[in-house]
Amino acid sequence: MTQAMQEPRIRNGVNVDTLFATLDAVKAQPELGRFQFRATNRWLGGAHNRSTIKEFYGAGQMDQTRTASWQFDAGEPPVLIGHNEGPNPAEFLLHALAACLTTSLVYVAAARGVQLDEVESTLEGDMDVRGALGLSDEVPNRYENIRVTFRIKSDAPAEKLAQIVARAQQRSAVFDSVTNPVPVAVDFIKVA
Amino acid sequence: MTQAMQEPRIRNGVNVDTLFATLDAVKAQPELGRFQFRATNRWLGGAHNRSTIKEFYGAGQMDQTRTASWQFDAGEPPVLIGHNEGPNPAEFLLHALAACLTTSLVYVAAARGVQLDEVESTLEGDMDVRGALGLSDEVPNRYENIRVTFRIKSDAPAEKLAQIVARAQQRSAVFDSVTNPVPVAVDFIKVA
Repeated sequence: MTQAMQEPRIRNGVNVDTLFATLDAVKAQPELGRFQFRATNRWLGGAHNRSTIKEFYGAGQMDQTRTASWQFDAGEPPVLIGHNEGPNPAEFLLHALAACLTTSLVYVAAARGVQLDEVESTLEGDMDVRGALGLSDEVPNRYENIRVTFRIKSDAPAEKLAQIVARAQQRSAVFDSVTNPVPVAVDFIKVA
Repeated sequence: MTQAMQEPRIRNGVNVDTLFATLDAVKAQPELGRFQFRATNRWLGGAHNRSTIKEFYGAGQMDQTRTASWQFDAGEPPVLIGHNEGPNPAEFLLHALAACLTTSLVYVAAARGVQLDEVESTLEGDMDVRGALGLSDEVPNRYENIRVTFRIKSDAPAEKLAQIVARAQQRSAVFDSVTNPVPVAVDFIKVA
C-alpha cells in the first residue's frame, strides 16, 4: 500500500504528511519560502481604527484560498483618551505573540511526534506610557519586557516539553520580530 | 466663564482637554504612567488558537471600564498547514503596527491643532519562511522589513503632515517594540 493511499497522519490537528511535504518542497525550491503579508487600516475617528486582512503572497503566488477578509477594530481605554472601541494596539501585539508561539509549539510537537492535549498561555507586558505620551525622552515607548507562561497538558515528559517550548521560541516569526529589531519604513501621501 | 463650564474641545475625535489633562497628571505623578497589558490564549487544534483580551493595569489601578472581553482567532492558510481559521499571527502584528501608528498620528495631530479628514494605511511585510520552518539557520524568522504607506487627507500643508508622521513614529509603542528588541521571557508549566 503506498503512502498516498493511506490515511493522512494527523497529530495535534496538524496534517503531518502535509507539513513534511511542505518542508521538502521549500527545501527543494527555496524561492517558495518568500512571503509577503499585508494589512490595510482605516481611521474611524479618535482612537478608533480598523484593519482589513486578506491577501498575501507566498509559495510563488498570490493566495487564492481566502474568499472573505477579516476586519479588526482597535481603540484605547478612557484612561488613554479612547472609548474602548477595541483592544489597544499594544494588546494586539500580545495576541500576535501568543498566537505565533502557540502555533510554533504545536507544529514542532507534531513534527516530533509529541501529542498535546491542552495548551494555554498568559501574557503580561510592562510599559511606561510616559514614553508614548512624549513626557520623557529617557523612557522607551516600547514594552520594557513581556512574560509568557504556557500551561501544557501532555503525557510527554517535562524535559521533552521544555525542548519543544525552546524550539518554538527559536522558530516563531512574531517572537523573533519582537525580540529583534525589524526595519519599518513609514511614508505618506497627502491626498486631496 | 471657566474652562470647566465650556464645551470640551474635540479635534480629530480626540478630547483635547482630556489629552492635556492626562499629560499633566502623568507629568505630576510619573508612577501613573506604569501600565501592564495582558492577553490569554487557548489552543483549539492545529494552527487554530484564540486570544482573550480584557484586563489591564494602568494609572495606578486595574481598569474598571471594560465590561466584556474581546476574542480573536488566529490560524494559518493551507500553504502553511492551516485552514484559514483566522489571519496568521504575523498578519496580526501588521494590524497592531498599523493601529498604533494611526492612533499616534491622530493624537499628535490633535495636540498640534491639525485637523485630519481621512487617514488610511497599507502595510507590507516581507518574510522568508525558511527561517520559521527551520530550513535555514541563515534566514531570520522575523520580518525582513515592513513598509507602511499612509494616505492622509487634510488641509494642513505637506510639511506639517510630514512632521506629524515623523513624531507618530517616535511615539508609537508598537512601532518602537517592532523596530527595537523587546525582552520576552517564555516559561511553561506542565499540568496534569
